[in-house]
Amino acid sequence: MTEHPMWLPDGALAFLDRLPVHVVGDGPLLDSVRAEAAGAGAVGAGSVDAAALAIVPADASSGLGEEGFEISSDGARTIVAYGGPRGALYGWFQVVRDRAQGVRREGSTRFEPQQRLRVLDHWDNIAVHPVMGQVERGYAGGSLFYADGELRDDLSRVGRYARLLASIGINAVTVNNVNVGRREARLLADDLGAVERLAAVFRPWGIRVHLSIDFAAPLNLGDLDTSDPLDERVAQWWADATARVYARIPDFGGYLVKADSEGQPGPHAYGRDHAHGANMLARALAPHRGIVRWRAFVYNHRQDWRDRSTDRARAAYDTFVPLDGRFDDNVVLQVKYGPLDFQTREPLSPVIPAMTRTKIALELQVTQEYTGHQRHAVYLAPQWSGILGFRPFGGDDPPLSDLVRGGIAAVANVGDDAFWTGHPLAQANLYAYGRLAWDAALDASDVLDEWSALTFGDDETVAAGIHSILDESWATYEAYTAPLGVGFMVTPGSHYGPSVDGYEYSPWGTYHFADRDGIGVDRTVATGTGYAGQYPEPWASRFESLDTVPDEVLLFFHHVPYGHRLSSGTTVIQHIYDTHFAGAARAAELPAEWDALRGRIDEGVWMRGAERFAEQTRSAAEWRDQINTYFWRASGIPDERGRTNY
Amino acid sequence: MTEHPMWLPDGALAFLDRLPVHVVGDGPLLDSVRAEAAGAGAVGAGSVDAAALAIVPADASSGLGEEGFEISSDGARTIVAYGGPRGALYGWFQVVRDRAQGVRREGSTRFEPQQRLRVLDHWDNIAVHPVMGQVERGYAGGSLFYADGELRDDLSRVGRYARLLASIGINAVTVNNVNVGRREARLLADDLGAVERLAAVFRPWGIRVHLSIDFAAPLNLGDLDTSDPLDERVAQWWADATARVYARIPDFGGYLVKADSEGQPGPHAYGRDHAHGANMLARALAPHRGIVRWRAFVYNHRQDWRDRSTDRARAAYDTFVPLDGRFDDNVVLQVKYGPLDFQTREPLSPVIPAMTRTKIALELQVTQEYTGHQRHAVYLAPQWSGILGFRPFGGDDPPLSDLVRGGIAAVANVGDDAFWTGHPLAQANLYAYGRLAWDAALDASDVLDEWSALTFGDDETVAAGIHSILDESWATYEAYTAPLGVGFMVTPGSHYGPSVDGYEYSPWGTYHFADRDGIGVDRTVATGTGYAGQYPEPWASRFESLDTVPDEVLLFFHHVPYGHRLSSGTTVIQHIYDTHFAGAARAAELPAEWDALRGRIDEGVWMRGAERFAEQTRSAAEWRDQINTYFWRASGIPDERGRTNY
Repeated sequence: MTEHPMWLPDGALAFLDRLPVHVVGDGPLLDSVRAEAAGAGAVGAGSVDAAALAIVPADASSGLGEEGFEISSDGARTIVAYGGPRGALYGWFQVVRDRAQGVRREGSTRFEPQQRLRVLDHWDNIAVHPVMGQVERGYAGGSLFYADGELRDDLSRVGRYARLLASIGINAVTVNNVNVGRREARLLADDLGAVERLAAVFRPWGIRVHLSIDFAAPLNLGDLDTSDPLDERVAQWWADATARVYARIPDFGGYLVKADSEGQPGPHAYGRDHAHGANMLARALAPHRGIVRWRAFVYNHRQDWRDRSTDRARAAYDTFVPLDGRFDDNVVLQVKYGPLDFQTREPLSPVIPAMTRTKIALELQVTQEYTGHQRHAVYLAPQWSGILGFRPFGGDDPPLSDLVRGGIAAVANVGDDAFWTGHPLAQANLYAYGRLAWDAALDASDVLDEWSALTFGDDETVAAGIHSILDESWATYEAYTAPLGVGFMVTPGSHYGPSVDGYEYSPWGTYHFADRDGIGVDRTVATGTGYAGQYPEPWASRFESLDTVPDEVLLFFHHVPYGHRLSSGTTVIQHIYDTHFAGAARAAELPAEWDALRGRIDEGVWMRGAERFAEQTRSAAEWRDQINTYFWRASGIPDERGRTNY
Repeated sequence: MTEHPMWLPDGALAFLDRLPVHVVGDGPLLDSVRAEAAGAGAVGAGSVDAAALAIVPADASSGLGEEGFEISSDGARTIVAYGGPRGALYGWFQVVRDRAQGVRREGSTRFEPQQRLRVLDHWDNIAVHPVMGQVERGYAGGSLFYADGELRDDLSRVGRYARLLASIGINAVTVNNVNVGRREARLLADDLGAVERLAAVFRPWGIRVHLSIDFAAPLNLGDLDTSDPLDERVAQWWADATARVYARIPDFGGYLVKADSEGQPGPHAYGRDHAHGANMLARALAPHRGIVRWRAFVYNHRQDWRDRSTDRARAAYDTFVPLDGRFDDNVVLQVKYGPLDFQTREPLSPVIPAMTRTKIALELQVTQEYTGHQRHAVYLAPQWSGILGFRPFGGDDPPLSDLVRGGIAAVANVGDDAFWTGHPLAQANLYAYGRLAWDAALDASDVLDEWSALTFGDDETVAAGIHSILDESWATYEAYTAPLGVGFMVTPGSHYGPSVDGYEYSPWGTYHFADRDGIGVDRTVATGTGYAGQYPEPWASRFESLDTVPDEVLLFFHHVPYGHRLSSGTTVIQHIYDTHFAGAARAAELPAEWDALRGRIDEGVWMRGAERFAEQTRSAAEWRDQINTYFWRASGIPDERGRTNY
């Protein structure tokens, strides 16, 4: 099967055919721009004056950063003035985007990324994991990078992937899973050549390579009898190992670390804390201008479900906030957007506003672990917009996207699938992630249409159809799955499909406490775990009170009777029934909407989509019936509208 | 680690040392008896008169069957008169058993097996199954037969296993899983040599080899384009394949078939019924005096949990009873003891009393799939005694063991573990299975003591300790797991540990229908699925009525409120609390009882047991808390005695 071109099909570049283009500047990134132009049939203009499109260095006085650019147009001619080579690349693709949407810019428009680090973390294993497979939480086939226990010989597809990422402004990738196995640990040792080869493929596209490392590598690779971060030999080991990396990959990005989390090793084994661990690595990287991203996803995953005083939601705050101010400058603390784990709906992690003296990277999840495994069409950008636009200190204070100073990271959703992402429409999530990481203020719906125009062209029926299917799809998914922010009613292990009690008696700290009277987790300061108090005002008070807590996270913060009235006016139980009937009904409309696009889009895309929409419809009905039946059996309160439960 | 001798340690045979023994007769089985005698240090007596123990053919007039024997003793001398070579072997081991327990027989005692077929089915795969592993539902390591995708080169341990089986009267083994994969199907084709080698190892111990076959083998092995049992070519294919088997294994036992069950192929694909399928195979086997065992474990495993009119418990009866009288003489219908699947407690399968014109084999499960995976010490013989002694037609009519005319089968519990069975005490189940298959009237407690005396010798502290731990262990396990016969509250897939709702919304037809008001499955004729009506009287009426249904299967037949009073006088909810607290408390006593045996039994056995009892204690508390909490949350009815739920 032919590999799908994602959002850069020939049609999106057709305007370049025989267009006089002039590119000024040297180096691999400018070469990439020239190759783009030539590949699309543009002709060399010879000079800026003769060009319809010119890519030129900006004046030194422009103030543009290395990634910035300015587009000027006088109708006949478009000039992209770039601050640095990456800016040339990003400007080039901005022109492509503009053209696909018919945008005509008057005068000059400046573009600068909001975040300096915009990274995709690939949870790819080299050795296939017996449970998690080749790509942990991957739903799009095998790894793009690895096959048969080694780096692929043929990395040409990785090159095409790098180009696609560059076109949306991604400037870093992590090439292995944060859960680092023995095989993957060798990337830092005898298999460093694999990283070098990957870096060479990503380099022409302005993308730096990062590695997930095993904190216990000095021990596990057999060189030392310890990995204590305060042991001089350990620090030297990391300094040496890091120097070897930079000797071969001068633009290497840095390390990503999951330490003392879900069984991964870390500094706690030696009575050290996360600052000790992170700073030790940071000092190995600093001479080379590399960074260490240290994940804040640390909690007790051997919790006793009987113990209601321990609250996993509190864990990252309790662990990391006391360390604020102790991290070196080139440490980035990478924090999942919510306090638990990539649920469809969570309140924002309170760690982010609390740690003002630490560089924080926000971690999102493009791969649909809890949001339908790329079998359900779920456009996640509205979720991300809500997160990035959340104002932790209230109405006039800055949104989260201004507080985050360490970048934006996300878990990738691609694999060696012909459509890259399983569900072809999941490409929209990859696209939107890059765009929002560049500029959090972009409107999620606009980004959707932008992606759709690039991918499917200007057929208005298709544009309207795709928009209808995806624009509110996250809300639809939320409607037919776990209600009111309670989370985790998924099949244990796989995280696909409903299981109301699947995690209720588990050690994972993810409970709903439903009984015959009510449901939810009391995380108030007054009577619960106190988690609500980890927020600054006004949110601490808003979350604390039943009168002011937003409906969508009600059950995250409160245990309430089924008859409790939401601010919407309906009861909790009736809300459960209503949203699940409505959500599944909406899902059931999707196959017909997709049918209407047949013949107007690529047949292969249509066929794959048709299969996925059938599954989404089935699965949504299963969610509806299991959730509704569980709560009907528990509450004994019938649906006001007399619909069937079991 | 040294392989454990199970119930034939040197000590059990020590009395033979220098004993004058005389064995009369020829052939491989008599040679085995002679080798036993020699191996234990007995000396050849030269004649019956000079012997302290003589094994001699019985007079033709004795009326003893081929497997029967008679033991006569005059104090100084014991004579075993055998009806046939198997009788010699069984008589020999009866003498060993008698001796271990200090039994002195006055006069003559005749022994004949109640069942002609006493078979152990090994669910062993050759190719390791990605989910089920080497041995499906095996909890004792890898297969005794296969390793690395082939029959083992060294079958010496299989020979020792065969001897142990002969010592308890087992006369047949099935050497591969009833779920037959592509690799295993080759046992009937190019890998028939493996079966031949196994048969050669089992033959000296009077044990015939059976094969599980793929009903679609003519199709799947690529020889034909159909496996329609009424197609002449298919019948001829099986006749030819079977003739090839007998050409190499003249005493081959026959085929075991799981057809049209849980995805296995069968006659339904061609619009044929199970009689068509079974008889076609029977006719291929008949010229060679082989049998086909056709399993009655057929049901819809893609059931919709919303559909309460379909009842998996009804399935075997509904499918097979209409076929009664249509099966050939050498067809044995193999029926699981209960209508579902080897639960700790089920009512007896109504298929068994209903099919009076069909040879039925009762299928038990020695491997502890639903009864604690050989991590929990659960002596299953009391369950089997209850099943074998059940009188389907009421008080004075014959027990089940008299109705079964096709033999007794069971799923084996052994593997390449040093102790054979994971938990060393699970050896008792293997032992008891053989003994009860021989004589269902044996008392389960007596068999336990017999096994214990052979295995551990005559230390009274040990005998009392083992007895205390095991004698009521099945009742203890029942007490802390699923209540009142409702079954299936286990972790999906593995079937180990509690998950109250684990199968509640599944396609497997195994539901409890618990809600805030009550629990149980209405299988009455009056208001339920009608399953109770599949029994003959008096049981149809007894199960139908809440006044007469036995407490232990109440929830199998009725949906009742939590406040319903059992015949014991307590309510359902209080019974749940009481049994779970008591059961877990009993489990918690076991480590100390085991500790008391340390130094009195083999240290390796003790160490393995200690680890298992710790796990049983932990697991039983988990069962207690999850079950009690679930029903406390659902019912809102507190424990009368004020114990803690969560």
